[in-house]
Amino acid sequence: MPSLLQRKLMQIKPQEAYENTRTLTTTTNKGHYLSLRPLINPTEEQEEFPFEALFGGLSDSVIVSKIDDKTVKQDFLFGIHSNRILGLPMQSFPLPTVWKTWESGDIQETGTVTPPGLNNEGIDFVELWQPLNADVYQSKDDYRVGLTADNARSIALKIDTKEFYGIVTIVGNVVQGLLHKKENNTISALRCVVDAETLRFKKYEIKYGEALLQFPSEIPESLVVGSFIHGWEIIEV
Amino acid sequence: MPSLLQRKLMQIKPQEAYENTRTLTTTTNKGHYLSLRPLINPTEEQEEFPFEALFGGLSDSVIVSKIDDKTVKQDFLFGIHSNRILGLPMQSFPLPTVWKTWESGDIQETGTVTPPGLNNEGIDFVELWQPLNADVYQSKDDYRVGLTADNARSIALKIDTKEFYGIVTIVGNVVQGLLHKKENNTISALRCVVDAETLRFKKYEIKYGEALLQFPSEIPESLVVGSFIHGWEIIEV
Repeated sequence: MPSLLQRKLMQIKPQEAYENTRTLTTTTNKGHYLSLRPLINPTEEQEEFPFEALFGGLSDSVIVSKIDDKTVKQDFLFGIHSNRILGLPMQSFPLPTVWKTWESGDIQETGTVTPPGLNNEGIDFVELWQPLNADVYQSKDDYRVGLTADNARSIALKIDTKEFYGIVTIVGNVVQGLLHKKENNTISALRCVVDAETLRFKKYEIKYGEALLQFPSEIPESLVVGSFIHGWEIIEV
Repeated sequence: MPSLLQRKLMQIKPQEAYENTRTLTTTTNKGHYLSLRPLINPTEEQEEFPFEALFGGLSDSVIVSKIDDKTVKQDFLFGIHSNRILGLPMQSFPLPTVWKTWESGDIQETGTVTPPGLNNEGIDFVELWQPLNADVYQSKDDYRVGLTADNARSIALKIDTKEFYGIVTIVGNVVQGLLHKKENNTISALRCVVDAETLRFKKYEIKYGEALLQFPSEIPESLVVGSFIHGWEIIEV
């Protein structure tokens, strides 16, 4: 089912929990996902890349297995990741995580990340996610807590050419996109909402990178899986 | 300023964080506060008192001091507390807590509770609070994240007689109340919203205890501080 998750905290153990990003993760009905993590108050040094991270992937880049009715294991390989593009340390094997739904409806993610060069000592982390209703999300200041309907809009596009690799997800009203420009190893990102009448993208919360013009700017009129629009393949409608 | 806070997690160290309540804390403009903590899925054993706790107090039962722009110290004595009424262990001196506002807008509370009989060894706890907009709160499934306006409705009533001690807060659209019936040491509780037109209370989320009929059922027509309505004194409008 499609989902929109808002992060409420990140804890890198043994440090304390905190939240200094406006992280949203969109996951389409078929399991394609993007997690965009903009810093709320980037320092001057961080302005060049004002994100904790930007990543995502198609459904084949995550291995999902059920532990019990409330708990799911997800091992992430990531089809696109800012660390990889920007040459930062990144583990090459799947990142194991466990997602446990609390009685409150929030979801606690625990995992262990193992960047190379640390003698393979893993770093345990915890994140807490609050589900939002993607159908009525309007802006960072106007949204509702709650689940996204199973039949909400769920669209995914990908581009995979000599020049670019990228993914766009549209879940309910929320558009997120990531794009790797291979020529110079840069990453571009967008987050915005869909105008209910024109289906044009509007109210951009994230507009980052040099390849922004390569992203679509509206929901394509013809939505046929397998068709191409300006280089983007529609892989889910 | 008036506030409505929704708890997102409770951690009693060294245990893990979790949330199995629908806790809301209302605080009026003058600092009178109530925290009602109903269990989401009470067990059969818990049905008799289906709460983690019920407590609050007038502003003179909490000592507030500023640490810095993001951090406030609050030492709680509690004017009314279910543990005290039900004869459960409860410390007699103020409970020290520190409230730190994160960049995300959520507020992390840390504190140490020292129930008697544990050789005065304190138990550290953490809670995370998400501000909701009290003016547009409609129900547990229909609310908005965000601050409550400084000029939102902020009313407090108290009853303090031979028979009863109780507090009702009305912050924006949200009514909460606690009432101690002294004769048999029972506690009653309500949470509901205000009908925008009639100002009558409606959509009760919590209706608990044998003295429910003693609570007001609407916002009094005449709102004059110091006046009494059915035994309740209006102490803030």
